Amino acid sequence: MTELILHEYAASGNCHKIRLTASLVGATLERREYDIMKGETRTPEYMTKVNANGRIPTLQIGDLFLPESNAACWYLAEGSPLIPTDRFARADMLRWMFFEQYNHEPNVATLRFWLAFVGEAALSDFQRSLIPGKREAGEAALRLMDEHLTGRAFFVADRLGLADIALYAYTHVAEEGGFDLQRYPAVSAWLKRVAAAPGYVGIDA
Amino acid sequence: MTELILHEYAASGNCHKIRLTASLVGATLERREYDIMKGETRTPEYMTKVNANGRIPTLQIGDLFLPESNAACWYLAEGSPLIPTDRFARADMLRWMFFEQYNHEPNVATLRFWLAFVGEAALSDFQRSLIPGKREAGEAALRLMDEHLTGRAFFVADRLGLADIALYAYTHVAEEGGFDLQRYPAVSAWLKRVAAAPGYVGIDA
Repeated sequence: MTELILHEYAASGNCHKIRLTASLVGATLERREYDIMKGETRTPEYMTKVNANGRIPTLQIGDLFLPESNAACWYLAEGSPLIPTDRFARADMLRWMFFEQYNHEPNVATLRFWLAFVGEAALSDFQRSLIPGKREAGEAALRLMDEHLTGRAFFVADRLGLADIALYAYTHVAEEGGFDLQRYPAVSAWLKRVAAAPGYVGIDA
Repeated sequence: MTELILHEYAASGNCHKIRLTASLVGATLERREYDIMKGETRTPEYMTKVNANGRIPTLQIGDLFLPESNAACWYLAEGSPLIPTDRFARADMLRWMFFEQYNHEPNVATLRFWLAFVGEAALSDFQRSLIPGKREAGEAALRLMDEHLTGRAFFVADRLGLADIALYAYTHVAEEGGFDLQRYPAVSAWLKRVAAAPGYVGIDA
């Protein structure tokens, strides 16, 4: 099998997604760590060779490079039960993955990064001005997830799939960004179901 | 074939993507227009029946509802040449579609909406404070696209596909948001190639 290398910052939920998908489908990843706090993904070498967008994660497949966490999860999961075979369910899975990147990650993940990694005291005034809007949008994303999961075991087709993995990554650490998950009982129960999956690996693993 | 209904605001690039994909694959869409300026997608009826996220577009497939523009494009294009059959190319196509929703749309599309639809005078002080960051991030997205397209005809696998359609929608009207496309010659040439595709329909069609 082609060698797989994950270019990552291990504490990032976007990187955790990929490691979790790989573990669930039995793929082995070599891991290369970059310190995003020190700008190690913005060097000319990284941007020329790994990802012109200067971001982690990027999945290297032999000599090909695949940025964007959800695209990497898709690559790894093709042909596995993590992607539904039904045409609507497959598109509906992608729907939740696009929701994750548009409505969830920019709010829930950014507040976690700012508050738990950068530290509120080190934020710029501009960043601080964005917090209330990101708080409100993050809560709205969690509320929508909670409504959808009420009466459902997983996001799509009643089985664990990539939509769950994509949304799990930053939701299960949302309290580090100041979100109170007790307000979302269906989300909390679903987090436990995902973590109980055979092959599950935690963000610290 | 199952009846397809597009719940839309026609001037939205996210809706144009879906109409363009449908036209290229020969699918017929019925269209239902909502005035987002009047909050017609935030009514309880819309949010209960069409999209709990209160947004357009949503593609209705019989009695199933599929929000998120790129998921709808995927649904329509499955089995067509717009989705590559090679495993890496398919994931790479999704990579550009996630890039579009994360790095491009929130900047390029939002500035177009604010400046050409809402009008700068009607923006809140907070919205106005976001303009410089969105301008910079939008230019960065266009620059990355221009670099990638230099020496390439299309985004992935040298043929027109969903990555092109997703990125075309808001790029070809980016000047309405104050972006100067003459600064991006490879993007400008690619826009013409997309518009020359058999079956192409414009955003006003």
